[in-house]
Amino acid sequence: MRIPTYPSLVEIETPALIIREEVALRNIDRFQKHCDDNGLKLRPHVKTHKCVHFAKAQIAAGAVGITCQKIGEAEVMADGGIDDILIAYNILGGDKLGRLRSLAERTKALSVVADNDVVVGGLSRVFETASQPLTVLVECDTGGRRCGVQTPEGAIALASRISALPGIEFGGLMTYPAVGGQRDVLRFMNRAKAGIAECGIACSEVSSGGSPDMWHARTHDGTITEYRAGTYVFNDRSLVERATCNWEDCAGRIVATVVSVPSESRAVIDAGSKILTTDLLGLDGFGYLVGHPQARIAKLSEEHGIVRCGPDDRLEVGEQVHIVPNHICVVTNMLDNAWLERKRGDLSVLTIDARGKLT
Amino acid sequence: MRIPTYPSLVEIETPALIIREEVALRNIDRFQKHCDDNGLKLRPHVKTHKCVHFAKAQIAAGAVGITCQKIGEAEVMADGGIDDILIAYNILGGDKLGRLRSLAERTKALSVVADNDVVVGGLSRVFETASQPLTVLVECDTGGRRCGVQTPEGAIALASRISALPGIEFGGLMTYPAVGGQRDVLRFMNRAKAGIAECGIACSEVSSGGSPDMWHARTHDGTITEYRAGTYVFNDRSLVERATCNWEDCAGRIVATVVSVPSESRAVIDAGSKILTTDLLGLDGFGYLVGHPQARIAKLSEEHGIVRCGPDDRLEVGEQVHIVPNHICVVTNMLDNAWLERKRGDLSVLTIDARGKLT
Repeated sequence: MRIPTYPSLVEIETPALIIREEVALRNIDRFQKHCDDNGLKLRPHVKTHKCVHFAKAQIAAGAVGITCQKIGEAEVMADGGIDDILIAYNILGGDKLGRLRSLAERTKALSVVADNDVVVGGLSRVFETASQPLTVLVECDTGGRRCGVQTPEGAIALASRISALPGIEFGGLMTYPAVGGQRDVLRFMNRAKAGIAECGIACSEVSSGGSPDMWHARTHDGTITEYRAGTYVFNDRSLVERATCNWEDCAGRIVATVVSVPSESRAVIDAGSKILTTDLLGLDGFGYLVGHPQARIAKLSEEHGIVRCGPDDRLEVGEQVHIVPNHICVVTNMLDNAWLERKRGDLSVLTIDARGKLT
Repeated sequence: MRIPTYPSLVEIETPALIIREEVALRNIDRFQKHCDDNGLKLRPHVKTHKCVHFAKAQIAAGAVGITCQKIGEAEVMADGGIDDILIAYNILGGDKLGRLRSLAERTKALSVVADNDVVVGGLSRVFETASQPLTVLVECDTGGRRCGVQTPEGAIALASRISALPGIEFGGLMTYPAVGGQRDVLRFMNRAKAGIAECGIACSEVSSGGSPDMWHARTHDGTITEYRAGTYVFNDRSLVERATCNWEDCAGRIVATVVSVPSESRAVIDAGSKILTTDLLGLDGFGYLVGHPQARIAKLSEEHGIVRCGPDDRLEVGEQVHIVPNHICVVTNMLDNAWLERKRGDLSVLTIDARGKLT
C-alpha cells in the first residue's frame, strides 16, 4: 500500500514530527470501545504523547484517568487539569517524596506502585501526616522481567505490609507483562488475589497493560479490571510489524529532507538519531520510509540518516520524505513541539508538554 | 581501576548528569596543546557539550572557532558570544537559508559545507544580495560513507562551481573520515587540492575531524590545516574502549538510583533510554557502571535500566550508582540541565543551551 505524501508541506523546516489528529482520535475511540465492550477500565499511559491535549481527549473518550512514569510528567498533567493519575514507578528519595505529597494534595486521585519494602517504607513515612492516605499498588513481575515482586507470595506479603503501615493504603495489583504473556498474568494475579483475600485485604484493582497485546485484553476473563496502554494513541512501525495496527493507523510521521545523494544507492536525510532515536525494537532499519518500499534507513548518526535506495526508487536532493518511526514514544521525547494536523495541510503547533521529564 | 563514587550526592534527584569541570578543562587543554604542537587549528564540535560555557572555554584555550551541525545550535552559540562558526551541514530550504543569512550578518566568520549543486545554488541565491559572501567548504567522502562528494574530481568540480557563483566563496575542503581512515583522507585531499590549484582557485583550509583518531592528527603532514573534534571535551566509554582516553578522562557521569532488586541477579535503575539512549556504538551493554565491574546494563526501557549483577557484586534498593555512558553526545541532548561539579561535591546548574536544536 502506498500512503500519500503531503506536497503542500514542502516548506516545513525539517526534521519535524506531524501528528494527524483524526487518526489519533480514531485510535483513542477504537480502543476505548474495546475496553468498554469488555468491562475494562482504560488508564492510558501518557508517555507516548506527553501532551495535555491528548490526555484530555482520552479522558473525554472515557478513560478513568492516566498513567505516568515520572512525577514530573504527573505534575505537568495535573497542571493541565488531569486529576486521576497513577505513577507506575517505585518512588524513592526525599525530594521526590516531597513532590509526590504536594501532588497528592492537588489531585483527586493519585496512586503509585511499589515492589519492595524500602519504597513502601518511604511512602508511609512521608504520607503518615497527610490528610489522605496514598494508594499503593503492588507491582508484580508476571514475566516482563523488569520491576515487580517475583511470586504471588511476594505480592501477598507486600500487600499485607502496605495495609499495616500508616499513611498508605493497598490499592491492588499492577503488572507490565511480557509481550504474549497474558496467561502468565492471569495465573500470577489469580493466585495473588486469592492469597490477599485470605488475609482479609480488599484488592480493588488488577491493572495490566501494553499496547502490543491490547486486543487480547478481552481474554482477561474478569481478573483484569484496568488496562494501561500508551503507544496505541499514535501507533508506530513496531505495532504494524506485530499486526496490532495498520499503516493507516499510524498518526505520527517524521518529515525529513533529502540533503545529499552521494552515490546511486545512498541518500542522506536530515533525520538522525536526534529525532528517530536508535531504538530498533528488533526491526530492520530505523523507520519506514513512506512510499519507498525498497528503501532502508540503514544507519543513523545524530543529524544524518543514511538511506539505501533500490535501483528503481531514487531520492533527490531537496525532496521531503515521510517516515513512520519504529518507536513513537521515544520520538516525542526528543521534541519541544510537533505539528498537529487537524485537516490535510492545516498545521498548528502541538507542545510536547511533558518532554524530558526525567524525575 | 575503581573510580570513587560520591556519597555526598546521595540526595540528588536522579537520573542526572554530572560534569566534572576540572576533567573537561584538562581534556580541552590537552588536545589544544596537541593541535598547537602539530600546527593544526582546532575547531571543536559543540554537539557534545551544547553549552556556551564550554564553547567559550575551548575558545579561551586557543580554538579558532566552533563547529555546529544545525543552524539552531549556531544561533544559540552566536547569542552566547561565539563569532566564528562552521555549520558542517548541507543547508536547504527557504526558512533555513533565511536564518542562515541573518546569522551571517551578526557573526564575524560564518561558514558552511556543501556536497552538491542544489545546496550550492540555494546558498548563492540567498547570499547574492548580502554584504559579504558566505564561505562554503566542499564536503568530501573520504571513506566515512555519509555525505560528501565521492571523488577528488567531484570536489574540484564543486569548488569551481562555488567560485563561479555570486554570493558565495570557496573556503576549502572538509571531511568527516571513517575511524582509522587517515591515509584515505590524505590521498583524497592531496589529489583534490592539486586539482583545485590547477584551476587557479585558492584552497585555504583542509578540515578533518573525529575524536577517535584525534591523537593521530599529527600524521597529517601539513595537508590538514584544521581539526574538528567533539567528544574529547567530556569523553565516554566508546573512547575508552578505543583507547583514545582513560576512565579518569571521562568528565560526564550519569547518577542513577537503584529502584528495585527483583531477584538476586537483577537490579533496576532509574536511568533508561530517556537519558542513556539506546546507542551501543558496538559495545556490550548500555554504559559502564562505575565500581561494579561485574555488572552489565543489559537492557533499557524508557525509564528503567536492567542491570545484571555478579554474584559478589549486589546492588541495594536506594543506592546511587554512577555510569559512564557509551556515547556522551547523545546524553547531553536528552537534558535541559546537567550538574557542573567545580570541586568535589560543589554542584551548580549547567544549562544545555543548544539541547534539542533539530533545525
